[in-house]
Amino acid sequence: MGQMLIGVDFGATNVKIGCFDLELQLIDHTSVATEADQGAESTVERIAQAIEQLVRDVGSSPQSIVAAGIGTPGPADYQNGIIISAANLPFRDTPIRQMLSARLNCPVAFDNDANVACWGEFTAGAGKGVNDMVFVTLGTGVGGGIISGGRLIHGCGGNSAEIGHIIIVPDGRLCGCGQHGCIEAYASASWTAQRATEALEAGESSSLKPLLNQNGGITCEDVWRHRQEGDTLADRITDETARALGTLCINLLHVLEPSRVVFAGGMIAAGQVLLDRIRHYFDEQIWTMKKEPLEIVFSSLGEDAGITGAAGLGRELL
Amino acid sequence: MGQMLIGVDFGATNVKIGCFDLELQLIDHTSVATEADQGAESTVERIAQAIEQLVRDVGSSPQSIVAAGIGTPGPADYQNGIIISAANLPFRDTPIRQMLSARLNCPVAFDNDANVACWGEFTAGAGKGVNDMVFVTLGTGVGGGIISGGRLIHGCGGNSAEIGHIIIVPDGRLCGCGQHGCIEAYASASWTAQRATEALEAGESSSLKPLLNQNGGITCEDVWRHRQEGDTLADRITDETARALGTLCINLLHVLEPSRVVFAGGMIAAGQVLLDRIRHYFDEQIWTMKKEPLEIVFSSLGEDAGITGAAGLGRELL
Repeated sequence: MGQMLIGVDFGATNVKIGCFDLELQLIDHTSVATEADQGAESTVERIAQAIEQLVRDVGSSPQSIVAAGIGTPGPADYQNGIIISAANLPFRDTPIRQMLSARLNCPVAFDNDANVACWGEFTAGAGKGVNDMVFVTLGTGVGGGIISGGRLIHGCGGNSAEIGHIIIVPDGRLCGCGQHGCIEAYASASWTAQRATEALEAGESSSLKPLLNQNGGITCEDVWRHRQEGDTLADRITDETARALGTLCINLLHVLEPSRVVFAGGMIAAGQVLLDRIRHYFDEQIWTMKKEPLEIVFSSLGEDAGITGAAGLGRELL
Repeated sequence: MGQMLIGVDFGATNVKIGCFDLELQLIDHTSVATEADQGAESTVERIAQAIEQLVRDVGSSPQSIVAAGIGTPGPADYQNGIIISAANLPFRDTPIRQMLSARLNCPVAFDNDANVACWGEFTAGAGKGVNDMVFVTLGTGVGGGIISGGRLIHGCGGNSAEIGHIIIVPDGRLCGCGQHGCIEAYASASWTAQRATEALEAGESSSLKPLLNQNGGITCEDVWRHRQEGDTLADRITDETARALGTLCINLLHVLEPSRVVFAGGMIAAGQVLLDRIRHYFDEQIWTMKKEPLEIVFSSLGEDAGITGAAGLGRELL
């Protein structure tokens, strides 16, 4: 076993860890509980021990680790490697990059989880082979990362690529962020379910109706499943989600001109139909000035995008 | 007189030329007719002769030119320095960068006119002191340029920053580009005048009405002037333009997180009231998640942004 890279995907509940060769091929992975309430030093120590165990398990030694990377939920001071205060973490002013670097005795890269996953898809997943790419995560919220000219864009405060909060409807739905008409307020998993719920409550007939009555709520997965089973309302709701995402692709194209947009996150479980309809609405709405060859695809790394991208950002430090 | 930089702003009718010191201070400028119908070689030769005359006029010699830059209307193959075919130019497959470089015996930078003007404001104008900036030109169309992390973004084909064609209204106004609901279809000079014309034709009373009857059309400048003179319709039209531009600023912020947006172009003649209202609608519509310190300002270089930025891009080659 030669030189190795470590990728750490730091979540509020679990920390996922992968070890990779220098070509970003995953050798093995593990995970530990975050247990952030025990304090940052304890968490970092447990991560370091899990990394050491992982490399030993694959027949190597900690000395073979040449670089590592870590992605965390934002916001953070990524330039200085410090978690100032994150939404679901009790850490305050924690110099996590330096702590991990000192403990592993190698350079450590640090970025937010969406950028890290974006870098993973870009270097080793669905974004391979292009220089300009936008990564869009479809989950409870809509987020992402941007690669322009082969580099991650960060913005002036590390908060670029908040692409779910692009406004596409004047005085539209009130988003959780306080704006009206955000893409997220139409196309995220929770808002897709919410739009279906509102239609049911307004009296539309649908096979989702008994489910709502029974469970007191429906999920985005329910919408996908009932659409597949032929429900008309579920089909329309899916369509509206796809249309908003088609508009998103157009807006991203006109700002950044990526050659590829990569969708990721739980919602892509909707499958080919969602992808086809996003492409349909992109084609239907895009300008006629010239043919735009934007590729719209799904993530290929799935849950491994984070550890892969973290290791990949570590490799950039070599 | 020491080393000099040359900036060339190549338009369909005129070519503007400036000579600068290495701190991008304008020493003097001149211009020549483009006369593109005489052929590319003739035009380049006339530009070169005008440059040589300009540096002699300021008491220097062509040998003191260390670099130059040229901005042209797109599209072009900027990577290879070739005008393939531009909207208002008869040039075809013209390697303009190499032609000018050979003639001036110095490295020459080449980019589209909006990017060049963007670089001018960034290095020597209203964008000074920041690392992340968006430049927005408000004219017949709405275009721009993007600086992220101190670099110009180009996109995969040199067509990024087509920011007038971000869609902000579903099924909205039909833009000249073929899309519906583009920012340009609300906020450009021609569409601002068009919205006023439509309101007049729909019977709204306004001091603009006699002007429309008399001239058969009104301009954006008419709208600004009548607003200033107290016309209610002109005021509302101005307000709607500002609101669309406020939404544009929000969308740019969430994609790119610039610390400053610089508006330029003929429309900023509307003055402080336009800037104040753009800021107002930005503040009114922006999320409440956190305070966003985006600065929204007007260009400070005006018509000189192009020659300044071209010279500045030339300096980057040193």
